[in-house]
Amino acid sequence: MRALLAILLLVSTSAWSQALPSWNDGTARQNIVEFVEAVTTEGGKDFVAPADRIAVFDNDGTLWSEQPLYFQFLFMLEQVKAAAPKHPEWKDNAAFKALVAKDRKALAKLGMKPVLELLGVANSGMTVGEYDRTIRDWLATARHPKFDRPYTDLTFQPMRELLDYLRENGFKTFIVSGGSVEFMRPWAEKAYGIPPEQVIGSQQEVKFEMKAGKPVLRRGPKFAFIDDGPGKPVGIYRHIGKRPIAAFGNSDGDLQMLQFTAAGEGPRLALLVHHDDAEREFAYDRASHIGKLDKAWDEAVAKGWTVVSMKSDWKKIYAFDQ
Amino acid sequence: MRALLAILLLVSTSAWSQALPSWNDGTARQNIVEFVEAVTTEGGKDFVAPADRIAVFDNDGTLWSEQPLYFQFLFMLEQVKAAAPKHPEWKDNAAFKALVAKDRKALAKLGMKPVLELLGVANSGMTVGEYDRTIRDWLATARHPKFDRPYTDLTFQPMRELLDYLRENGFKTFIVSGGSVEFMRPWAEKAYGIPPEQVIGSQQEVKFEMKAGKPVLRRGPKFAFIDDGPGKPVGIYRHIGKRPIAAFGNSDGDLQMLQFTAAGEGPRLALLVHHDDAEREFAYDRASHIGKLDKAWDEAVAKGWTVVSMKSDWKKIYAFDQ
Repeated sequence: MRALLAILLLVSTSAWSQALPSWNDGTARQNIVEFVEAVTTEGGKDFVAPADRIAVFDNDGTLWSEQPLYFQFLFMLEQVKAAAPKHPEWKDNAAFKALVAKDRKALAKLGMKPVLELLGVANSGMTVGEYDRTIRDWLATARHPKFDRPYTDLTFQPMRELLDYLRENGFKTFIVSGGSVEFMRPWAEKAYGIPPEQVIGSQQEVKFEMKAGKPVLRRGPKFAFIDDGPGKPVGIYRHIGKRPIAAFGNSDGDLQMLQFTAAGEGPRLALLVHHDDAEREFAYDRASHIGKLDKAWDEAVAKGWTVVSMKSDWKKIYAFDQ
Repeated sequence: MRALLAILLLVSTSAWSQALPSWNDGTARQNIVEFVEAVTTEGGKDFVAPADRIAVFDNDGTLWSEQPLYFQFLFMLEQVKAAAPKHPEWKDNAAFKALVAKDRKALAKLGMKPVLELLGVANSGMTVGEYDRTIRDWLATARHPKFDRPYTDLTFQPMRELLDYLRENGFKTFIVSGGSVEFMRPWAEKAYGIPPEQVIGSQQEVKFEMKAGKPVLRRGPKFAFIDDGPGKPVGIYRHIGKRPIAAFGNSDGDLQMLQFTAAGEGPRLALLVHHDDAEREFAYDRASHIGKLDKAWDEAVAKGWTVVSMKSDWKKIYAFDQ
């Protein structure tokens, strides 16, 4: 019996040291490991039952890159361009003009809502299957301007390891993104190990109808739910119905999700990814039009949340980095 | 190796024969077992990968009783009565009058929407935590008029076994109910093994706010989503993002969910529970004001869906039955 325990201990110790291999051994990695050890130690004062080990992740800028423009905006640009001939009224639409001009400053000033509304009108009338195909087709062919690779290559290797590490420790992992659920579901399972039913995002209206005896879900022009900023805790409540014990973000759009998570009783992990690596990725924060990190940074400092420096905390950014 | 296989075979055979012990060996049980064997047989033509083994269950009348009135309506009656002094305008509200008079005919005619709207106004302004407590308090004390037991005792034992059986075979099980998510989440995990994040239902508006430096979710008066009838496939799409391969219901409110499930390619199980046991539970179908089974029954006959007779297919209804 004692020999068996010794072996188990050995196995689990070696598992710990193998966890998070792309993370340097700094404060961020230590905070993560200490938190996970605390909530998984049975009999410990901070133990959390597996059913309550809920972890929520922002997507853009937290799990994959978001520069020079949210990748969904680049997809939307194609969609909106394709639909433009049918919508002469867009000529005077501020979001349309900013999108076509790729005017990041104007897009950031407008915010997610009017841009999503434009996309809503562009794909309105499609069945959910037709819409899904337009996304898969785009993802299969489009390439990132800086890295000349498919966008789905641009997920952060250390965050993928973090997702695995949390799940190995009994966590259930969710994406909570301002983007549309449909844009993430086709690849989130392969990239992050997160199945479609654990992806929370903005939601366009969808209607059930019978067409020639067959049930069909057809997209309407309006958004039913915007999962950004104060919408994120609402999305979490509606979809999960529990307060997470760990939340991961990178911008002011994640502030309320982090506040909501951190305000629960017991041990909490609130973490921000800081984009400070212009060479391997991009460097931006308070002054950025995309993924602005300003208020959330101040709050992180004031509350002692974990801030990850991509430059010094991560050995590599992407899986393809040497 | 052969000995090991023989043992595994023995174990799995005995597991099969132990499955669904409260089900009589009729067509309904056979259809269920054949379907599950078909989709779990690796290499078979009907094999379905575990990730796609999604099963959706209506709640009222499918997993627990719903007579003499949806249990949530009985809870709402208390809520609405408590709030009535603050709402003199309700005096002329048809849903309010029907609810207080427990007028089932009028309530059925009005449908779920105006009754839910009344509830929305009644609990508007509560935080989600306060609202949760009113539900837990009611469930802990209220008793069913016919059985004189807590409502949560009135779950169907054969359906609980079916949920277990499906999960043992790699299925992920969801509730898809016209009722409010908040009314089911506090007890669905214990009663059905379904965690809060797998409960889909009608959703009242909720808003994030900071109150004395603390983040709070506060209920608004309006419903953001009604998960009934044609709303059910929409709720499934929004929450799960996949078409289920098995759906279980008992009334016309489940018709579109069953149609949507059955219309997918490959093996499908669409099942209706028929309440035909006046002695052990209740007997009602086409003419009932609550849980009306009319159009869905016709469609089940036309399409060859499975119809369960509670009287002849189930050895017991509730766990407490002898």
